[in-house]
Parts: sequence; C-alpha cells; structure tokens
Amino acid sequence: MTVVSGAMLQGDLGIVQTEYFTIPRLLLENGETLDSMTIAYETYGQLDEERANAILVLHAFSGDAHAAGYHEGDKDPGWWNALIGPGKAFDTDKYFVICSNVLGGCKGSTGPSSIDIRSGKRYALDFPLITIGDMVESQKHLIDHLGIDRLLSVVGGSMGGMQALSWLVKYPDKVRSAIPIATTAKHSPQQIAFNEAGRQAIMADPEWRQGNYYDSNPPDKGLSVARMIGHITYMSDVSMAEKFGRQKKENTPGTKFRADFEVEGYLRYRGDSFVRRFDANSYLYITKAMDLFDAFDGRPIQEAFGNVSAKVLVIAFKSDWLYPAYQSQEIVRACKIAGVETTYCEVHSTYGHDAFLLEVDEETHLIEHFLKKVFYEYAVTGGYGA
Amino acid sequence: MTVVSGAMLQGDLGIVQTEYFTIPRLLLENGETLDSMTIAYETYGQLDEERANAILVLHAFSGDAHAAGYHEGDKDPGWWNALIGPGKAFDTDKYFVICSNVLGGCKGSTGPSSIDIRSGKRYALDFPLITIGDMVESQKHLIDHLGIDRLLSVVGGSMGGMQALSWLVKYPDKVRSAIPIATTAKHSPQQIAFNEAGRQAIMADPEWRQGNYYDSNPPDKGLSVARMIGHITYMSDVSMAEKFGRQKKENTPGTKFRADFEVEGYLRYRGDSFVRRFDANSYLYITKAMDLFDAFDGRPIQEAFGNVSAKVLVIAFKSDWLYPAYQSQEIVRACKIAGVETTYCEVHSTYGHDAFLLEVDEETHLIEHFLKKVFYEYAVTGGYGA
Repeated sequence: MTVVSGAMLQGDLGIVQTEYFTIPRLLLENGETLDSMTIAYETYGQLDEERANAILVLHAFSGDAHAAGYHEGDKDPGWWNALIGPGKAFDTDKYFVICSNVLGGCKGSTGPSSIDIRSGKRYALDFPLITIGDMVESQKHLIDHLGIDRLLSVVGGSMGGMQALSWLVKYPDKVRSAIPIATTAKHSPQQIAFNEAGRQAIMADPEWRQGNYYDSNPPDKGLSVARMIGHITYMSDVSMAEKFGRQKKENTPGTKFRADFEVEGYLRYRGDSFVRRFDANSYLYITKAMDLFDAFDGRPIQEAFGNVSAKVLVIAFKSDWLYPAYQSQEIVRACKIAGVETTYCEVHSTYGHDAFLLEVDEETHLIEHFLKKVFYEYAVTGGYGA
Repeated sequence: MTVVSGAMLQGDLGIVQTEYFTIPRLLLENGETLDSMTIAYETYGQLDEERANAILVLHAFSGDAHAAGYHEGDKDPGWWNALIGPGKAFDTDKYFVICSNVLGGCKGSTGPSSIDIRSGKRYALDFPLITIGDMVESQKHLIDHLGIDRLLSVVGGSMGGMQALSWLVKYPDKVRSAIPIATTAKHSPQQIAFNEAGRQAIMADPEWRQGNYYDSNPPDKGLSVARMIGHITYMSDVSMAEKFGRQKKENTPGTKFRADFEVEGYLRYRGDSFVRRFDANSYLYITKAMDLFDAFDGRPIQEAFGNVSAKVLVIAFKSDWLYPAYQSQEIVRACKIAGVETTYCEVHSTYGHDAFLLEVDEETHLIEHFLKKVFYEYAVTGGYGA
C-alpha cells in the first residue's frame, strides 16, 4: 500500500507515492516486443486476505497513476480523489485500489520519451505503435506482480473505459465486474478527426523534427494547439456558456488577435500548462491507439464477449458530445446480445465529457451500490471460503 | 450583368465574370478609414426597370463573389450554383442577383493581403480590425453604385446570415426581406473557441511571422490545421459516419502517424487544398469579425430591430451543431419581440452545418415561395407604379 503518512483530510488518503514495476519483456499485439517496460502505479487501501477486493482504475488520455491522495508538497490531489478514499465511491477502507500510468505515456511508464535500453537513446518514433490491448497486457503483468488473480472491478472513463472493455475481451476470467464510463467500443470518424487535427498540429510544428526533439526545444506550440482542440471537445456548449459567456478580457488596447474573450484566455492557459506536463510524442501514440481501438475487432459480439461472466455498469452523460450516449448504448446492446448482466445509467449533466471527472455525487451513488452488490455476491457465492 | 456567353447547361448561367468596384474611402465602425477599398462582385440576371428585383447574396467565411455560373475554363461552378440561375430558387429570369466578396477577404476584395496605397506595401497586420457591420457598409456602397435604392432580399448562410442580420439593423429601410440561414445573432463561447484554436494554429506557425509572410513562405501548415478543425465542425457525426465510417486507407506499411483512416486523408486533403486558395491573415481578420459580432450590440431588441419592416425567413438544420437550431430560434424570438413578420423552418438534414450548401431541394422550396410572396406583395402594395 502506497499510503505513507500525512495530515489526513476528512475522507482523504493523505500523502501517497508512485511506485514502479518493470516487465522484463512485454509482447505487443503486433508481435513486436518491448524490453524492460516500466509501469508507474499507485495503490490505496489494503489487499484483503482473499486478494478479492482489488479494483483497477484506468485513466483517460492525459491522466496518470496519481488518482488519489496527495504527493508530498502538492496542493492538488490526484485526478479522481473525489471518488477514491475512505468512505468514498471506491472506499479504501474496503477495497484495494490500483491505478497505473499507461504504456506509451510520459508520467513514469515507458513511452516514446523513455530511454531505449538497446540503443541508450530515447525511443522517439522508434517506439512501437501500441494498442489499448497492449496497455491492458502491461496492467495484467502488474496485477500478477501484486499477487492478484482476479480483479473485483476494472473501471475507467473515456480511454479508461476502452481499457475496461479490453480487459473484458482479453481476460474475461480475471474480472468480476467492469465500469466503462463516458466511452465507446470504437471511435467514430468524428472522434478520429479531432484526434487527427491534434496530431497534425503537433507534426506541423517544425520543432517536432519527426519526433526527435528531446535534445532541443519540444514542439510546444503545436502541442498547445492540440490541447486547445481537445479542451473544446471535453466541455459542452452549455458548460462553456455558463463558465465564460461572452465575457471580455482586459487587454492592452491596439493589439490584434489577442484573447478578447475569457474563453480564449482559458484555452491559451490550458494549452500552455499542458505542454509543461505532457510529451508530444506520447500524444501521437496514445491518440492513435484510441483511434485504432475496436473492442470487438470485427469479431461477432457473442464470440468477443462470449466468456464474460463479469457484471457491467455502463455510465454515460447527456451533454457529452465527444463520447455521446449512443456509443454507451451500443456497449449495453453488445452486453445484452452476449448475455452479460448490464446496468445502464445516463446521467443528466451539463459538463460535457468532463462530467466523468465532475459528477461526483451521481457517480458515487451508482458505483458504491454496484460494487457492494458485486462484492457481496462474491462473498455469498463461493468467495471468502464459503 | 456579368453573364457574357457560354455553353448553357439546363438552368445554368453559363460563363460569368467577376467585376470590381472601388470605394474611395470607407468609414469603419471603429472610426478608422480605409482608402481605395475594392469590392469584388458578380451579378446574375437583369435589374428590372423599377430596380426592385435585386437580391444580395452574402457568402460564408471562406466564400467569394463567384456564387453561380462558370468562370472561363473552370470545371466547377460557383458555390451556390444549385440555388442561383434560371428557374432556380433565386431565379435569374426574375431577379437580379448580386454577390460580393467580403471586406477583409482574399478573393478580390481589399483585405490584409492587399497593397496599402499609403505605403505601397501589403497591409498584413496594419489592416484595421474590421466588423461584420463594415462588410455591410462596403456592400451598401456597392448597392448605391449599382443604382439600387432598396433590396428585395438579403440572404446568406453562416457568416452570410450574420451580414443579413446586420443589414436589418443598419439599413432597415433598404431591405424588403432577409433570409438568415444556419446562423446566429452572436457567437457562443464554443464557436469562439473553435475559431480561436484555428487562429492559434496559424499564429503558432513560425512562417506566420506576425503576419509579414507575403515575401516569404506563407504559414501553410498552420492554416491547414485551422481548416481541418473547421471542416470537422462543418460536418455532423452522422454525415462523417455515412461518408467515411472507419474505412481504412491503403498505406505504405511501417510508416507511423500516416492517415490510417479515410477521414484523416480527407481532412489532410481539405487542409492542403485550402492553403492554395486562402490567405492566413484573412482567416484571422474574418474569424475575429465573426466572434465579435453581436447583432443587437447589447441594445434592447425593440430598439435594434425597431425600424425593421422587412419580412424574415429563418432557416436552421437539425444536425448543425456548429450553429445549432436554438441560435436560429433566438433570432426568431427577437423578430417576434420586435413585431417583425417572421417564418421559421428547421430542416431535417444529416449534413451538419454544410447543409446550407447541400439541402438544395428544401431550400429551393422555402426560398422560392418566400421570395414570390415578398415580390408579389411589393407589386400590389405600391411598387411598380401601382
């Protein structure tokens, strides 16, 4: 368990630390291998004696392993702190919660900015094209390392939800339940198009240098534009109207193409702050993995989901136009076709795609009860020495 | 009349030419002046003796004066050829149709890429910040030059619709009717945000050089990314799914971050072809004019629309998420409040914002009848010497 100490806030985990585990050789879906693949992760709570209370939390595109609690010296907690902790939806008094940074990322796990041990240099574009399934494969190694045979749940929003679906297909006997949130079984051309515009913004930046920018200036301007595009898609028309309206900014008179409106200043700020925490090549690799993801890989649903015994809770948000509710309904339909026990909830929210990070009360209510049910059924139907 | 000759297609205008008119001094809304402002325009049909059959067609963001017919040697006709011509919605056997390129543009009208007669050099960012109202002011000069006291109609989609609204507010006694299509009285923060992402893409390109690129390479890469963002917003989720699905492209194996999907190839193509026909600084100036546009300028609607005697036909499209129907409904509400006679039609379409260019049958039906009514009422209530 990663919790070490800390001035505990009510229901908070206090100070946590990121840990690292290295997989000697990871076999990728395309047949290539990745040697010495490190996976950054955090855990919260205690694994019980039965090793039956482990929940794997899967992060979205730009997330990291730091899902809850505080890092020493930080003001802000992990990205899903509102849902993970003592007494929260993922109650760390009951459950052992694991969150790992994805393969291909830049927050401690091996990605294009990591040193390739074969050459001693950073991978850059020599990094292999990875898939959502490869991310799951690396997580499977981590779970084995932690001594967990079967997860109580795999859960995630957005790209995290894709990984949850991939877990169901790849390791149906290893998961007791799954909670895909605000996600899809495969990207629509519109979702691919937004990602492609972001990738083109990065690759249009001359500082990108075909990915070989680690010894020079990184393509900050291109990456910033990519993030601006992303941010527009994470919010909704309504939430932008509520947050910014047509509020003007104070500006030096006479300057042209300044940020006249608050919303412009906000986007520039989000773009600028993103480049300080994210690697442009990781942006390319991870968005491409999302675009190429197809939960069923063109197989009949009965075949792909045929061995799934997990219970599934699918959550969508009404104002989410990036991952519209119809895509969650398609997941539900697939589960029904395959005879998978599924609950669907479409939450009223004006937050757009960001709702999966913000609609804490609704999510807490849904997840808490769902997990209790799964955990209790396990206890009375054969688990815990019954 | 611009029609000069041509192998006439059924209902087509044949060969047309762009003409030019220069305004000695244009007074802008911000108090600045623009000397020797040229306006590129085309006309189709004949002005009648009463000079009462003139319709001003106002183009969208990247449009031009060439709305109908063919330029010598061109395979493709003008951008609204499906609606303008003999027997069409804007029937050139009955009406005299005028279309001019906007102030600030790069298709023959004076804009940032034009020579500033004071310095003998291109304006670049010395070009003044222009408004939708300034575009209308330049069109008013053109109408005066053509000897037209009152327009039968002002009509346009998207930014063209904003100009139509501006005509109603600025020159209520000069327009007998208006047809704003797929437009808004003011941009939402989401619309501003998409434009801002495009502007940032251009300004992030080092070739932009603070706008001074006319003697060097233009910022093609940045402009291309801006156009890609735009194209996503012009289509709908459904129309993209119908047009592209998840269809893959044939690619050289092994290359990374290629266009794997058809939709990616399409966006790259649209971006690349756009830079050959559009000026990056015009992109900045015109999108900024759209963002700053507010049809009522914060005035009470009764005051802004108080003197409007025109009949108004407002058209919106159900799948248009860039200019959603609620914004057209807000225009209708404003008209009703001000006692303006208004008809509203929300057309079923899957084409998204592009529908205003593509839903020819529906638009023809609506516009044909609306114009006939306006034209006939004029004839029986005082026009034509009655």
